[in-house]
Amino acid sequence: MTPRRTGRRPGNPDTREAILAAARTAFAERGFDATSIRVIATAAGVDPALVHHYFGSKDQLFRATVDIPVDPAALLPAVLAGTPDEVGERLVRLFLGVWDSPTGAAAVALLRSATNNEWTARLMREFLVTQVLRRVLDHLDVAPDELPLRGSLVASQMIGLAMMRYVIRLEPVASADPETLVAALGPTVQRYLTGDLG
Amino acid sequence: MTPRRTGRRPGNPDTREAILAAARTAFAERGFDATSIRVIATAAGVDPALVHHYFGSKDQLFRATVDIPVDPAALLPAVLAGTPDEVGERLVRLFLGVWDSPTGAAAVALLRSATNNEWTARLMREFLVTQVLRRVLDHLDVAPDELPLRGSLVASQMIGLAMMRYVIRLEPVASADPETLVAALGPTVQRYLTGDLG
Repeated sequence: MTPRRTGRRPGNPDTREAILAAARTAFAERGFDATSIRVIATAAGVDPALVHHYFGSKDQLFRATVDIPVDPAALLPAVLAGTPDEVGERLVRLFLGVWDSPTGAAAVALLRSATNNEWTARLMREFLVTQVLRRVLDHLDVAPDELPLRGSLVASQMIGLAMMRYVIRLEPVASADPETLVAALGPTVQRYLTGDLG
Repeated sequence: MTPRRTGRRPGNPDTREAILAAARTAFAERGFDATSIRVIATAAGVDPALVHHYFGSKDQLFRATVDIPVDPAALLPAVLAGTPDEVGERLVRLFLGVWDSPTGAAAVALLRSATNNEWTARLMREFLVTQVLRRVLDHLDVAPDELPLRGSLVASQMIGLAMMRYVIRLEPVASADPETLVAALGPTVQRYLTGDLG
């Protein structure tokens, strides 16, 4: 039986799935940077042009593999603009805005999956480093050799916030007003990004 | 076939398992505080004295249900003693000492399970609040109405550290020297415990 197809995205669903499966494997095994559209197309047995046709850029394909409907490249500029010493607060506010919204369900699902599946954990790691942290740190005046530590410290606080608010649901963090959390966590993220780490 | 039993703990393994199952259900459904040894014994169909005989105190039984071989009551005094403005650093150092040790595997397993199972999440929440945070905060000069927020903020940073170091394994946090993390995270935990939260 051929399923009836609706919606705006044309093409063969089997081909789309084959490309997504090849992309997941390649991104998890090689990492985002070392993976090319060409490599994914070869693994899926299709022409690279078809990958671009279905998914757009490598960034867009990567977000499709981790099933996150948020584009950090579109959201982060507003965070990175403005006074540099409030970037921590703005980052926490953006994070809560996304995770508190209906979109957040996909992020929570990814987080759950990443804790129980090494491949999803690798994809999440690649997502954090290449799609989020690299973009934030590119815009701050930080020594390049400090970027990885600062970035992973920020990630530790943000993922811990997500765990407590959406997964473990520890009160009062679970139902706190977003601005309470922005005030509490903003200075932490700010220090991890630009402050003295001892 | 009756399995051959070894080791030092006497008694019927079925009875032990029945008590543990009843305890897990009661702790998850009612919470730690509202659960008594008597309630658990009734649910398991045994005498309360047998529960004490097998597991000792309610604290010890609770730790057995979450399968954590660490007793916060035994470890925390060393953290809480000494200069109050370095309690954050000492707490991070203790946390890393436990999770970096062979014992940490049980904690990582609990963390994985809690992200995918609502009941384990409830048990983890109860463990954090009643076994860890309440003990820390009892010894610090903090307004009682601020305790829950401060405690859950500390938990957010600690669980986030565990996620990044042991589960997602984001570098350099995953393999950083413990003292690097103590220096980086200690001031965060200190501020959450005793500082200005905005």
